[in-house]
Parts: sequence; structure tokens; C-alpha cells
Amino acid sequence: MNRETFKRNLEHYAELAVRVGINLQPGQTLVVNAPITADEFVRVLAAKAYEAGAGNVHVEWTDERLTALKYRVAPEEALTRVPTWKPAGMVEFALEGAAFMTVKGTDPDLFAGIDPARIAKASKALAEANREYSGYTRASIVSWLVVTAPNEGWASKIFTDVSPEEAVDKLWEQIFRLTRSDRENPVEAWREHIEKLGRWASHLNAKQYRRLHFKAPGTELAVGLPEGHKWISAGEKNAKGIPFVANIPTEEVFSAPSRDDVSGYVTSTKPLNYNGARIENFTLTFEGGRITEVKAETGEDVLRALIATDEGACRLGEVALVPHESPVSQSGLVFFNTLYDENASCHLAIGASYPTCAEEGTGLSRDELKKRGFNQSLVHTDFMIGSAEMDIDGETADGSREPIFRSGAWVI
Amino acid sequence: MNRETFKRNLEHYAELAVRVGINLQPGQTLVVNAPITADEFVRVLAAKAYEAGAGNVHVEWTDERLTALKYRVAPEEALTRVPTWKPAGMVEFALEGAAFMTVKGTDPDLFAGIDPARIAKASKALAEANREYSGYTRASIVSWLVVTAPNEGWASKIFTDVSPEEAVDKLWEQIFRLTRSDRENPVEAWREHIEKLGRWASHLNAKQYRRLHFKAPGTELAVGLPEGHKWISAGEKNAKGIPFVANIPTEEVFSAPSRDDVSGYVTSTKPLNYNGARIENFTLTFEGGRITEVKAETGEDVLRALIATDEGACRLGEVALVPHESPVSQSGLVFFNTLYDENASCHLAIGASYPTCAEEGTGLSRDELKKRGFNQSLVHTDFMIGSAEMDIDGETADGSREPIFRSGAWVI
Repeated sequence: MNRETFKRNLEHYAELAVRVGINLQPGQTLVVNAPITADEFVRVLAAKAYEAGAGNVHVEWTDERLTALKYRVAPEEALTRVPTWKPAGMVEFALEGAAFMTVKGTDPDLFAGIDPARIAKASKALAEANREYSGYTRASIVSWLVVTAPNEGWASKIFTDVSPEEAVDKLWEQIFRLTRSDRENPVEAWREHIEKLGRWASHLNAKQYRRLHFKAPGTELAVGLPEGHKWISAGEKNAKGIPFVANIPTEEVFSAPSRDDVSGYVTSTKPLNYNGARIENFTLTFEGGRITEVKAETGEDVLRALIATDEGACRLGEVALVPHESPVSQSGLVFFNTLYDENASCHLAIGASYPTCAEEGTGLSRDELKKRGFNQSLVHTDFMIGSAEMDIDGETADGSREPIFRSGAWVI
Repeated sequence: MNRETFKRNLEHYAELAVRVGINLQPGQTLVVNAPITADEFVRVLAAKAYEAGAGNVHVEWTDERLTALKYRVAPEEALTRVPTWKPAGMVEFALEGAAFMTVKGTDPDLFAGIDPARIAKASKALAEANREYSGYTRASIVSWLVVTAPNEGWASKIFTDVSPEEAVDKLWEQIFRLTRSDRENPVEAWREHIEKLGRWASHLNAKQYRRLHFKAPGTELAVGLPEGHKWISAGEKNAKGIPFVANIPTEEVFSAPSRDDVSGYVTSTKPLNYNGARIENFTLTFEGGRITEVKAETGEDVLRALIATDEGACRLGEVALVPHESPVSQSGLVFFNTLYDENASCHLAIGASYPTCAEEGTGLSRDELKKRGFNQSLVHTDFMIGSAEMDIDGETADGSREPIFRSGAWVI
């Protein structure tokens, strides 16, 4: 990619984030949380946001290598010391009607070798401090968006046989392609894409299946769906009724499993990168919604620590359907990044459900949602279960079954 | 400089900042404000802080190119929108007894071409939001430190005939030399240096001159000194009695002028970089402490905007003596950075005085200090007046004069 093409695509990508992802409104504040390695992208983003009429652009920078240093050498007490004024500031922004963008791009091996108990402790403290703020995005009260930007550490994990600079370039190329930022008119391409995903979601919403049955090598899982569950795809609306797209890219149609009705076993089909640690080739067994057995070839201790975070962390909060022929999947790459890997594969999430997946859910308290079968937790971690061999059936209220996926593809 | 030497010197520099500058106490939190371009240095700094027993290291990153973009294109209202929760968080840290380090390195031409009125508006809003927090550092209630780290923009302004990467390398070399970080035992070298500066400060404190008389080409200025003024050099103490050094490097011995007793005229001997704009070759005329006339070859509008910030911005808040043979001066370089240029030259500051320059001053309110002749303002901006031709006399209580500087050098 020459510099000129790169700059054009980067502008497309930023424009997509501002206009389709966030759908920034005139005068609105855009809050960006980004790693310092994403500085070039963030500056283009800010310029596009001001062009779109942003009232203000506020950026909070993080340096994940500094976080890793802290997790490695800081005294134990420092791990749980999270300044409360920063999450409170985010809530203040949310109350003012700001939109929130997070730029991700964690080096998947960043926390390798660090005591998982220390990581888990710090992550939990961070999640607790951010609980109120997370409520605004999780319930889509405000517009929010997750996008990615490469850095040398991350890119070199995907493209191992080239220099770090080349790896970054190659990863940008993939990001531009998979987000349609390399097209002449990405905004128009996204309009069509959103419509297509919306048709599948509408179909499933009309069906109101009682359960989904997943069958693939290593997997035989029945996933109950609570009464009044909603399937969601790219086009969401915030509390003010403004449409936005929370993930770029997105290929999924997702809902919430019933917290008490998941049974059987399921095997991961891609590595899971959690807090900078790698978890690979794992199988979870469920009874009555709870994880009762955990086996992992790599990172079993990290996985167990994740599941032990709180009561809801041993139950499911998301079920998402992604065809095996999704463009991300067809790239043939493992991205070691949830935003990409989840859009290459059917997946489940350990932990909290999205209130938006419950009919009239965003007005309900956590307890009310829980009573209706929607799981609550501090964590929400996706893991991939899809493959070309995945069959999925929907079980109707009368117990009969209808095919939804065959050999990893939609059949509706 | 080879990579190995660089890394050793960088560690020395970080160690100096932590142990001599901040003098970090076991369990203490270190708060660092740094540009994202200083990331490598900040990570070494954090590692050294944890080695020294830091309870926690908290870093707030800024991207000055993003700030420039905002000043250039954001709507007018955005310029004065400063989130109050961030300065409040800094105050919270101060109350907990944290120490504060600021890493500077602004590209001196960063804000070139931006309307000075917009810059002044934004700077004033920022200063107002930070007024309470600034009080903790200005009065040395907490330990604080200013250091620098190069970036390509800044370094290329000093070293114009080499590539940006080489310029950064050359600037690091100067920084290491002038902060004594390239020596075998920098901490020991600083002990001697602090002692030497302390002897000059003690001499002036014992004298309690009523006025200083500055004489050089373009300068004939009488600077009154308030009753109970104190001369300060490298070794300060915070409210808990812990010694610290607020600037690395530092070559100055400084105090506060009387806010009502400055008369004559003074001409700058180095360019002044204010908020990313360049002000050059300027002369200020004083009557009764007030600036009554402003002339500048470059940036006169920026200078006038600075002086108009508030009532105290047209008076002086600092008078500092630096010999012309200081190492920074002998480098022969103009750094376009106050921390370096001020240590190459006698200087004055427009705006606020340091409460520490008044006997028992840190316990006094702003009004009480003002009544005692110590100037108050939102701004504090140094400008350079020293040269090899600078003579300074001290005027005693009985009106007689004693030489302090001759031809730019201490004669006491």
C-alpha cells in the first residue's frame, strides 16, 4: 500500500467510524479511548469528527506497555487502586449526551508471563470502577463504537514472517478491506450490509425460538433463550432514537441466552485473548446454565480466574451467529483480537448480557433483568465456537426443530 | 550515541528525576503528565519509580498535535470546555500526598498560524480549571518536577541540518550532558551542584536587597524586592519537609519582584515560545510595576494577549539569576524550551509569583500575598534577558549599591 492509498483508506475508515459507527450529531461531544500507538488514526478521526460538526473531541490515551509494567512490578495494592474520578468523568460525558469510541489493538502476548491472579485482580477493580459508565454503553443509552488500529506487537503476531513495519502495513490492509474502507463509497456499502444483517435478525425475532441446538465436532450444546429475547444486528438505536453501529466490522446477529438454561458441552475453535493472556483449545461443560467443567490446553488458570470473577461469570451473556463464509473468516487469518475473530465465527460470551437483547430491557434494573433470565456480571468475554461444520437448529415452543445453520452457513 | 549508551543514560536521567527531582518516598504515588511522544522515557521512569518503592504510577498522556488540531478547527465553545473532573482528580492525588512530574517537549512551531486569540482563550480556560491544582505545585505543598523529552518536531527546530531522527538523538545527547545524566554518578554530581547554588541563594537572603538594578544593551531596569522575600535554588522542601528539586536541569537562583516596584525597560535576549507561538526581540517598559509599553519584532499580538490575560499578567512574578557561563548557555544552542533557555540566562517571569519566595508564604492566601507585594495571576511565563554583557547591582536599605553580576557572571 503506498502512502497515498493508505491515507485515503485511513480517512475512509475514520469517516465510517464517525458517520456510520457513532453517527455523530452536530454539536455532540466525541469521547475517544485509544492506545498511544493509534495516534495517527486518532488525529484523522478527530479531524473527521470536527468536519462532521463535533462540539468537542476528548481523547483519553492509554499505554498498554505501561499497564503491563504495572501488572508485573507494582505493589499488590496498586493493582486495585483505580482513580474514581476518571470513570465519573465518563459518566458526566454520558449525561451530557456524548458518544464513546474505543480504539483497540492489544498485543495478544503483552501480559504473557504475568501472574493471572494479579491481572484478574486489576481487571476486576477496573470493571467495578467502570460499572456505572459501562451501563451507558452496554444498554446503548449512548452511541458507542469499537474499532481497531494496528501496532507492531499485535500485527507481528498475525504476520510472523515479515518485519514489524510490514506487519502493521499488512494488518491495515486487512482492516481496510474487512471494514470496506478500501471501497469507493464505504458508507453506501455499509448501508447495504446493515440491511442484510437486519433481515436475519428480523427472521429470528419473529420465530422466538425456545432454544438453539449447536452441533459440531467437540460441541453439542442446547442454549435456551429467555422469553422476550431480541436478536440484534448492526443497526442499533441509542436512548434518543439515533441509529448507530457499535462494532466496525460486524457480521453477527446476536441475542442473550437464558442464564439458567444452557446444557451440554462446547469446544472453542479459535484462541481467546483475555487480558493479554492466550487461552487455547478449551471445552466448557454446562448444566442448568452454569459452567460445571473447564478444560483448556493453554491458559486454563486464566480461564478459571475469569469464570470465578463473580456469580454471573460462570454463565453465558451472549449468543451470536456468524456464517463461516463471512469476509473475516474467509481472510483465513486468526487476528487474536475479539472484534475480528468474533466476526469470523459463531460465538458465545461468558458473563453479562446486553439489556438491549431483552424486550424493553434498557429500562430494567440488573435484578429485574436477572429475574427474566438475562445474565449479569462484571465481565463479558466472547469466545469462538463456529466452523464450517457447525449446524444450528431452532427449537420452537412446541418442541419441533427447524434448521438455522448448516455447515456453517445461514439456511434461512 | 549507540543504543546501549542511550539506554544507560536514559536510565540515569529517569533515576535522577525519581530520586533527586521528585525524591520519591516509599509508598508514594507518582503522577506523570507527559506527551505521547515521550512514551519510551515514561516507561523507564515508571520502572525506576517502582524500583524506588512507588505505591503507584499514574500517567496522564497528552497529544499536542491533537491540541493544535482542536485550536485550529474546533468550534469556539469547545476551546473553553475543560472537563473539571480531571483537575479535580489531580487535587485528589495531591491531597493523598502524591508527587507530580511533568514531561515537556513542545514543538515550538506547533501552533504557528493559529489565531492567538483562540489559543489565549483556551489557555486561560485551562489555567482557570487547573487553578486549585496549580496551587499545590506553585506553593510546593507537594513535590513536583519538570523535565523534558525530545520529539522530532522540537528537535528539528534546534538541529535544522540533520534528519528528524538524528535531531532527536542530538537533543537527547544535550539533555543527558546538561542534566549530568551521562556521568558515572549523576546523583552525586547533583548533590554538589545543589550545594553550590544554595550558597548563592544564602548570600542574597542574608543581604535582603531592596532593589536589583539590571544593566545591559537594551536594558536598564530596577526591580524592587518585597520585604521578606526569599531567594530559592535547586533544593526546595515540600509541606512535609521532604527536599525535592523542581526543575532538571536548573542553574538559577530566583525570587519574586515587588509587584508595584519595577521601573525602566528590558529587552529579551532569546526567543520566547508561548503556547506554541514564537515571540522574538521584544522590549517591555515598566512603571510602578506595570508593563506600560510592548514592542516585539515577532509575535507582538501573542505577547499582548498574554499580558492581557488578567490584572496580574502585566506585572512580574519572578526574577532569576543565571550566569552566562552556565553549561546550558555554553552549549551555544537556543532550545526554544523554557526549561533549558531559562537556565542559560538571567530571566524574569510575567505573571504569578511563587508563594515559596515569601517568608512563611505558603500558608498565606492570594490576597495576603498580593498585599505583601507578591504578584498573583493565572499565568507565569519566563522570558530571557541575560547575556555576557549583563551587570547587576543590589541596592541596600540605605540606598548604596553592591555588585552581584559583572559581564554575566556572579561576583559574590
